[in-house]
Formats: sequence, structure tokens, C-alpha cells
Amino acid sequence: MSTTISDILQALKEPVDRIEAGVDVLCYGDPNDIVTGIATAFVASHDVIVRAKSLGVNLLITHEGLFYSHFGNKQLSAEDPVVREKQKFIEESGMAIFRYHDHIHKYQPDGIMTGLLQELEWNGNVEKHTSFVTILNFDNMTVHEVANHLKNKLNIQQVRVVGDTSMPCRRVGLLVGYRGGGEQVIPLYERENLDLIIYGEGPEWETPEYVRDAVFQKRKKALIVLGHAESEWPGMKYLVNWIQSEFPSIPVHFISEKPVFQIL
Amino acid sequence: MSTTISDILQALKEPVDRIEAGVDVLCYGDPNDIVTGIATAFVASHDVIVRAKSLGVNLLITHEGLFYSHFGNKQLSAEDPVVREKQKFIEESGMAIFRYHDHIHKYQPDGIMTGLLQELEWNGNVEKHTSFVTILNFDNMTVHEVANHLKNKLNIQQVRVVGDTSMPCRRVGLLVGYRGGGEQVIPLYERENLDLIIYGEGPEWETPEYVRDAVFQKRKKALIVLGHAESEWPGMKYLVNWIQSEFPSIPVHFISEKPVFQIL
Repeated sequence: MSTTISDILQALKEPVDRIEAGVDVLCYGDPNDIVTGIATAFVASHDVIVRAKSLGVNLLITHEGLFYSHFGNKQLSAEDPVVREKQKFIEESGMAIFRYHDHIHKYQPDGIMTGLLQELEWNGNVEKHTSFVTILNFDNMTVHEVANHLKNKLNIQQVRVVGDTSMPCRRVGLLVGYRGGGEQVIPLYERENLDLIIYGEGPEWETPEYVRDAVFQKRKKALIVLGHAESEWPGMKYLVNWIQSEFPSIPVHFISEKPVFQIL
Repeated sequence: MSTTISDILQALKEPVDRIEAGVDVLCYGDPNDIVTGIATAFVASHDVIVRAKSLGVNLLITHEGLFYSHFGNKQLSAEDPVVREKQKFIEESGMAIFRYHDHIHKYQPDGIMTGLLQELEWNGNVEKHTSFVTILNFDNMTVHEVANHLKNKLNIQQVRVVGDTSMPCRRVGLLVGYRGGGEQVIPLYERENLDLIIYGEGPEWETPEYVRDAVFQKRKKALIVLGHAESEWPGMKYLVNWIQSEFPSIPVHFISEKPVFQIL
């Protein structure tokens, strides 16, 4: 029996309660089309869509939005030449594109976190999950050792750190994506008695400045900032295995992207 | 005649129209106290406040908030030990602290931008100012040359770049602080016919991903991300000269901070 795009979307949404408002939508494509192959990616860049096409798939599942915004960029005109060329390629390719953000984050534990833990081989270190942070236990790894582990496992050129890199860490909080905001993150140091917090992205003048002050006061606190994509692509890679196990006859690929920034 | 804190605040607010709602407030101190000396800083970290005290000043003017948030962190308990120790030091020191953010950004041109242009020695390259972006003209400097100039003049270890670093730039858009959001920044490339945009901080999956797609489409576009503090401290340094010229008998200092992040 043939599998439609609609069947895949239903399977992807089924593990969590219905989300009334949100960003997960089929941006392009006909839900009744038969799926010939699936690709997943952190972000459907123009390059990723071209590579998906060359793999022969007709459904691309992207975590972040197609047009450079979480909610859809109202100011960005359809006359923008970059947008127009990308839209034209998508339409001519016949690629269906599904934004898959809110549902995967609502998995218990968060599906993006599950992928990150698997990539880091830290499943054995998990003490507990909450909806936005996972608490990990370590046997006195230093901040520097944790940073090296993150760089090696995620193939990251560098990470940004606040604190004493020789400090041993026992209790660590891990957050994916743009969850580094001070209102959520700063209270975790006390509430969860954390030595180190690791997140994807957050405002530079919030949590990092708190940790700077804590370190000045000789408190043993540290922060590692991974990068947004670096913290979330493992979740979209992990999704490949999940889809493959549900639909074993459909080819499923993960498409990786280079880091968005060069360092100069 | 003696100058009070209130006199200084009035002089700082006077150049712009009254701001009804905003974050600029005297967080600590008595407006009727006589000013013995003034220090300015990008952020009133605990370390900065200690150094201000040792300089013998009794008024510290900070651009970003004291407690790790733009609007004031509602979730951050007064029981937090970092907050408590910082508050205790401020109270015992008798330091008056004034948050000076909205008014200086409302100067025409933006006072923070004026300081950045002065530090970069780019006043001669300005074509025009708008309320949030300054357009500069160059004689075919490459992205790499622009990046090196920024690093040298601002004493930055590294910048983050999207695009071809050998690309020559003629028209450049410069934005300070957290103004890198895609809704505001992306349309500037077309509207102002820009080769390169330079900003302090912004979401990683918005403007950088637009430039990634533009470059994939062989368009000559580039982006340099400076860092939030790196784009704004020159404005607070510049403020020293302005205050000094208005109040020549009061000692006025700029207090610099180390970069909040180490790179590992």
C-alpha cells in the first residue's frame, strides 16, 4: 500500500496532543501525493532543498522556517529576489516541505533533546527531563573536558564559554535552541543546584552576564553556548531513525548543513 | 556651584524628546546627592561597580540592565545569591546607578552609533543615518579587510561572518546592539542596495540564513556579526567626552569590560 504525505504528517503529529496554534504546517506540496522518499534537515536552506531533490525524495521535513523567521516574515516582500528564486526552485522541483518544530519539541522527552543526547552519548547521564531542560550528572568532568566532548561529538569548530574552564562539573543543565533567555535559565542554577548550563542560543546580555557576576563573586558556575543549529540538528538526524522504523519501505535521509558562520 | 545627580540626568535626557515608557531609570542613589565623579560602562557588572567605587566616583551610568534583563527580570528572585551579593555591595558603596539606554539611542544620530563610528574612524564614510541603521560607502574594501578593521579598532578576538570574504564592498549597513532580526535587516539589502551588513547581535536562524541562501544563489551579499557589547561599548566610551564637555569640573571615566565569552 502506498504512503501519502498526509500519512507521514499524521504519524509525526500523533505522539503528542493536538497543537491548536503553532508553526507546523505543510508549506508546499499536496498531502495526497505518494511519498517516494523523505529528507530531514535543521533548516530548509536553498542548498538543502537542491540536495534533497538530487536524492530523489519528494518530502523535506525542516525544523526551522523556510523564509528566515519563526512565525513567517511579514515584512519580507515576495519581491525579494532571494525569496523569489527559492520559491521558484521549490515550485519547479515539486518538493513538498513540512515545517516540523512544535510537535517534536512536545515529545516527552523533547525529540530534539533525545537526538542531541544520543549524538553526545549522554543517555546514561540523564537524571531527569522537564519540558525545557534536561538535568545531567557527571563524575567531575571539567568545563574544558565538557567543551571538548561537545566539539568532538557535534563536529563544532568552537564553543563560547563563561567561567573557569578548569572547574569540575557534577550537575549540568542542557537546553536546545533559543532557550538561553535569562528569565528561564538563570533561576535553574539555584533551583537545580547546577554547576554548568549548556544551551543553543540566547541573548548575550542576560545569562552570560549573570554567570560573569557569579564568577566574579567566586561562585562555581559556568556556561557553554553551542549555537542554535549545533544544538538542534542532532534532533532532526535522530528523526530519520524514527521515521525509518515506522515506514521501513521508504528511503529516509538526513541532510546536514555547514555552520552558518565562518569565524574570522 | 555643586552639581547633583539630578542635574546630570537632566542633561543626559535633555537632547531628546520626553520618553514616556522606557527603561532609563535611576536604579540606586539619591537624585539630590552632589556628584563627586562619574563612570560610564556598557553593563554594570559587579566587577565594573567595584572598579567604579575604587575610582572614587559616586554615579555609574550603564547602558544595559543591572540584573541580566532588558525590562527587569520578573522571575529572578531577590533570594538569588548573586543578585543579593551585588545588591549588598551597591547599597554599602553608596553608588548611584543610572540606566541610560533609550535616550542615547534616540539621539540624532543615535549616540551609540556616533561612538562606534568614532572608534572605527568611519565618520568620513557615512552616507546617511536612519533611526536604526547607518549607511556607509567604501572604495571596494573586501569583507576580510572590513573584518580586520573591526577587529583591530574594537580589539575583538574574532567576528562571525556569512559570505565570500574576498568580496569587495561598496555599500555597507551598520547596526548596533540587538538589531539583527530578519524583519528589519533582510529588506535593507535590497532597499539600500547593500553588499554587506554589520550588526551587534541577532537571531542565528534569521538574517544569517538569508545571506546563506543569497550566497548559494551567487548573489554578492555578506554579513558580519560583531557581538552585542562589542557594538555598543564605544557609544558609552564616547559619552564620557560629551559629559566632560558639559561638566568640565567633574572627573568622568569609561570602564571597559573583558569580552563576556571565552572561545574554546
